[in-house]
Amino acid sequence: MIICITGLGLIGGSMATDLKRRGFARHIIGVDNNTSHCEVALQKGLVDEVLGLDEGVKKADLIILSTPVDVLLELLPLVLDLVAGSGKVVTDTGSTKLKLGSLVNSHPGRKCFVAGHPMAGTEQSGPSAAISGLFDNKCVILCDPEKSDIKALNLVERMYSALNMEIIYMQSSSHDVSAAYVSHISHIASFALSLCVQEKEQNEKRIFSLAGGGFSSTVRLAASASSMWTPILSENAPPVLEALDAYIHQLSLFRDNIASRDISKLNHLIGEANKIQQIINLQIQ
Amino acid sequence: MIICITGLGLIGGSMATDLKRRGFARHIIGVDNNTSHCEVALQKGLVDEVLGLDEGVKKADLIILSTPVDVLLELLPLVLDLVAGSGKVVTDTGSTKLKLGSLVNSHPGRKCFVAGHPMAGTEQSGPSAAISGLFDNKCVILCDPEKSDIKALNLVERMYSALNMEIIYMQSSSHDVSAAYVSHISHIASFALSLCVQEKEQNEKRIFSLAGGGFSSTVRLAASASSMWTPILSENAPPVLEALDAYIHQLSLFRDNIASRDISKLNHLIGEANKIQQIINLQIQ
Repeated sequence: MIICITGLGLIGGSMATDLKRRGFARHIIGVDNNTSHCEVALQKGLVDEVLGLDEGVKKADLIILSTPVDVLLELLPLVLDLVAGSGKVVTDTGSTKLKLGSLVNSHPGRKCFVAGHPMAGTEQSGPSAAISGLFDNKCVILCDPEKSDIKALNLVERMYSALNMEIIYMQSSSHDVSAAYVSHISHIASFALSLCVQEKEQNEKRIFSLAGGGFSSTVRLAASASSMWTPILSENAPPVLEALDAYIHQLSLFRDNIASRDISKLNHLIGEANKIQQIINLQIQ
Repeated sequence: MIICITGLGLIGGSMATDLKRRGFARHIIGVDNNTSHCEVALQKGLVDEVLGLDEGVKKADLIILSTPVDVLLELLPLVLDLVAGSGKVVTDTGSTKLKLGSLVNSHPGRKCFVAGHPMAGTEQSGPSAAISGLFDNKCVILCDPEKSDIKALNLVERMYSALNMEIIYMQSSSHDVSAAYVSHISHIASFALSLCVQEKEQNEKRIFSLAGGGFSSTVRLAASASSMWTPILSENAPPVLEALDAYIHQLSLFRDNIASRDISKLNHLIGEANKIQQIINLQIQ
């Protein structure tokens, strides 16, 4: 199978590596407006060749769109125009799904599109950060599967199986709310923590010295690129704002109980917070 | 040298392991009110024997207090009563320093006490979580060193050198503010994130499925024990409240700019947040 990957970043590059290595793809075409990304992808052997969008789509059986979500809004309708009626399949890897889905709901090529969101990544970006095994044993969300042709859906399912991912099905609206709570707020929490510490502590050496107490882990996501995250937060604004208000509310509960030195309530809040680890551990085992 | 470690948790247990293994301690006495902690510490070989507090202190050259900070407030004056004038040295590993220091400032045994805070840990607790190498290449803060006898200070410095830690000197008040910003807020941020997600998402399986996008890293600290953290947050309330307000302010900036879809300001905020990674990487290299 020939695959065209548009957007040679961490996600697109890591998919390319394992789809080729595991024999799912015979030939991988890379498409990216960023010429240095194309060079790195070729040098690292992530892709076999680099082409323009039209040419890449024309040559491929499966087209994977792994650009930032604002670019997807422009790209998907164009690509669906190119593939409608051809039997080619298109999928995306975007972190928000409702707006993109609404945009193409009445497009004649809608049924050859499968909306996907592989839940994997690191705080790094670009093809130089691409790694093999990034998706292994993680989950991918496929949204609104009833809107895709069954053959298209099956092809994308087989692709994610080749990446060793567990497939979950959700409606776009539900996906976007859950993603806001679980993924998007984690990033805002980390960005804000970074800003807060940098503003207070001008002594960089001291930030580092004190960072052993858990700071590094919590602030890791603060290295995530604005080119990816500004479009996500802006596009998914309604659920993100709801989740952010809920987060600020929980922080305010801590604030009030610290101010009043309410030991019993603080113990209760922390005890409830502890339960998240049981949920995550339970599922990993 | 004979060392008495009071509080056989993650920190005390991990110190015991490496101080013995690296030859700094010839004999380690464990003291803990929790009998199951004592049993685990003996079984794991973290300590050579378990004694009561008076007996342990009497037999030791160096006494390390590694209990939660609320217990330290009761324990330190008692231990200083026992050691005053004996040449024995006492140190602690507590995460807040000002209140404890103020409590013993006029104690006749003050000079044999060295206030310390090794900046290392995990979200786990208890002696079963104790590991060798926990402190390697991390920093320890020694507070108000001018208030300690030079011989006592030197002994504690040598101990932390045996643990491969870099020593930083700070005043207690300054330590507590920095710790609030860098360590304590990270924990509250993580606790609140856990509560926020659990409240919204009753489907545990779905939390786990979506957790690949960075959630696990940010929420890791939410497993931290309330027996340790409630006393820290309560005792260090003034700087923690200041830092928490600053954190909520930064979150509100995100909220406002997401609500108004201000792409330029969101890009700027995230770009500034990204800089924390340069600081941490820069210092690690």
